[in-house]
Amino acid sequence: MSYSISKKFAGMKPSATREILKVTSQPGMIAFAGGSPAVDAFPCEEVKTLANEILNEDPVSALVYGVSEGYQPLRDTVKKWLKERENVGGDGDTVLITAGGTQVMDLASRVLASEGDTVICEEPSFVGSLNCFRSHGFKLKGVPIDDDGMNIEKLEEVIKANPDAKFIYTIPNFQNPGGTTLSLEKRKKMYELAKENNLVIVEDNPYGNLRVAGEDVPAIKSFDTEGIVVYAGSFSKILAPGIRVAYAVVPNKMAPAFTIAKQVSDVHTGVINQMIISRWFDEYDVNAHIEEIKKIYRKKLNLMCDALDEYCKDFITYVRPEGGLFIWAKLPDNVDMISYVKRLLDFKVAVVPGSSFMIDDTAPCQYIRLNFSTPSDENIVKGVKIMGEVAKEFIK
Amino acid sequence: MSYSISKKFAGMKPSATREILKVTSQPGMIAFAGGSPAVDAFPCEEVKTLANEILNEDPVSALVYGVSEGYQPLRDTVKKWLKERENVGGDGDTVLITAGGTQVMDLASRVLASEGDTVICEEPSFVGSLNCFRSHGFKLKGVPIDDDGMNIEKLEEVIKANPDAKFIYTIPNFQNPGGTTLSLEKRKKMYELAKENNLVIVEDNPYGNLRVAGEDVPAIKSFDTEGIVVYAGSFSKILAPGIRVAYAVVPNKMAPAFTIAKQVSDVHTGVINQMIISRWFDEYDVNAHIEEIKKIYRKKLNLMCDALDEYCKDFITYVRPEGGLFIWAKLPDNVDMISYVKRLLDFKVAVVPGSSFMIDDTAPCQYIRLNFSTPSDENIVKGVKIMGEVAKEFIK
Repeated sequence: MSYSISKKFAGMKPSATREILKVTSQPGMIAFAGGSPAVDAFPCEEVKTLANEILNEDPVSALVYGVSEGYQPLRDTVKKWLKERENVGGDGDTVLITAGGTQVMDLASRVLASEGDTVICEEPSFVGSLNCFRSHGFKLKGVPIDDDGMNIEKLEEVIKANPDAKFIYTIPNFQNPGGTTLSLEKRKKMYELAKENNLVIVEDNPYGNLRVAGEDVPAIKSFDTEGIVVYAGSFSKILAPGIRVAYAVVPNKMAPAFTIAKQVSDVHTGVINQMIISRWFDEYDVNAHIEEIKKIYRKKLNLMCDALDEYCKDFITYVRPEGGLFIWAKLPDNVDMISYVKRLLDFKVAVVPGSSFMIDDTAPCQYIRLNFSTPSDENIVKGVKIMGEVAKEFIK
Repeated sequence: MSYSISKKFAGMKPSATREILKVTSQPGMIAFAGGSPAVDAFPCEEVKTLANEILNEDPVSALVYGVSEGYQPLRDTVKKWLKERENVGGDGDTVLITAGGTQVMDLASRVLASEGDTVICEEPSFVGSLNCFRSHGFKLKGVPIDDDGMNIEKLEEVIKANPDAKFIYTIPNFQNPGGTTLSLEKRKKMYELAKENNLVIVEDNPYGNLRVAGEDVPAIKSFDTEGIVVYAGSFSKILAPGIRVAYAVVPNKMAPAFTIAKQVSDVHTGVINQMIISRWFDEYDVNAHIEEIKKIYRKKLNLMCDALDEYCKDFITYVRPEGGLFIWAKLPDNVDMISYVKRLLDFKVAVVPGSSFMIDDTAPCQYIRLNFSTPSDENIVKGVKIMGEVAKEFIK
């Protein structure tokens, strides 16, 4: 036999992060390599109560086919909640429920671009999204990030150089892996550039609710008068990721195509999953829950940053993020990043090589990504201390 | 603004069936247009017990990220069960868990073909799969079906005429909408043709467990010595569709690409959904459950066929299926099918126009698809009686 794998898939590699996750689940490993929210923050009791109520009161509704757009009560709730909380979505927009945030990137990819088209993104960026775009056969063009997010002058250059670009992919809040937040001024400039150049903006905001310092910055979607922004948010970080429920806010005129894309992908998101979230809003105070879990994230973020300042002072530089799950840590120029990552594994500390988040993941890179939400408070300090110890071997 | 929708999506229309489903949920409608399994067959009590146990004993495992390949205990269980029950899957194959059966078609599309390639399928065929293939920009080439499934001479012609074909899509058991089952002889011939012509076979078997008469026919996958068959099965019809759990059995050498395709689509299927199915096998007798629900399907299938024989004798011709959910009913040549379907709606009976299942859905078509699993026993008889009454208006 001699069938062949499609061209767009032939060169694909599994996400380095998810491959590393397999190693990090080994016993005794201090996992700074994950991307999972803190398990202490999962509302386990609430989910149990909700699932029980649903399956007692209305099991058939939870088990029959649903519609592709999503469970209507949840769509209504999310629409209202987003409007109140973030001023996102209005009469010109449609809320669709998806199976996790990555699916929004996949639906947008299907609907907005074709094999060979260009997608513009921050570099570094979330490897899951980059791989999604790669799997559609898109060319990726990266724009470097400053401390306040994507460099807008560079963005303008990249747009000019790539007239076949279809959309800009951005994670404006606590970027993964960069940790940076795009300033309001830059958000407005990005929007103007998109408008002038017939580009859609795909605004991916999985971490926006996990702000632990500073002030919220308005979503790009909140000033989308032209209907050119696709906004993605998720319950993975505020409820739990295993439940796989997220949402897209898309301009009405794109909604039919997004609905078909969802239909041909998986028909609809699991109904019980959607009903659990819908009832969570009905019976609990979700905003109060978010304030509660922020305390966990604030503590862990500060714990890791303080430990880095203490134990890795002369070795690692970083910008303290105001939220999210990650710290983007730079090693000295004369250190071989991969050797350091491998050496850390000998001491049972797992971090992600920064190159995983680059468009060309074979180019030299001095960064590593550290996650502070998964490890215990104790392991955060212990792990960073080990990082500092191992660093001594690398300081020439 | 003037972004444009991708070429492959610009001409897409929502699935006629799912659009009709919206009409059929109107109060008082007798729904022969659905495709849902019988709600009486859902193991509601079991699902409640299982969900409760999982969320009591191990809520964190149910809520954290899973791996893209699927929940390992479920993968192991499905592998063993399929081998015992259908002789499907061996050392050369990998079992992956997906979010419903449609996702297997989507993953296969991503991995096996590129925009512009040809896919060969039965005509008529399941509109959900056809739309999935269309959404990837594939050309569809149909092969007519006989009473014992795809016409193999025609298949050979279509293969010869389309050297750019990448795979054959077939629903061998109780085909949707045709109701036919592919004979063993034809399965073997199809396999030989695929082998000789470097084609993959995507064997979609959502209904195989719902046989109510006759003898099981071995799956094509059961004699796949070359590793060229992708097999899809689902829990939608034996547990319930809203839970969105299905499985793919893929040759090992394709498994890495399928895993990446799953990863970039939705990362993984909901963990609690997978754990419910996994525990269902551990704590209940799934094979016995299947035998129980077959009684419901047997009764409904015979009820509808007997009613058609009594009330629509001179108007509708069909082949009595040996299982599945559908009857493919042919109207007399001089009857305008769409007018009949519309007139039935006036009398609150909803059926699907057969044209929905054709590659060119604007070409003339004398068929309608009837579903017997969704309506109550009473409504089956009542609806078919109405069909017979309305038929009188159309008999010239």
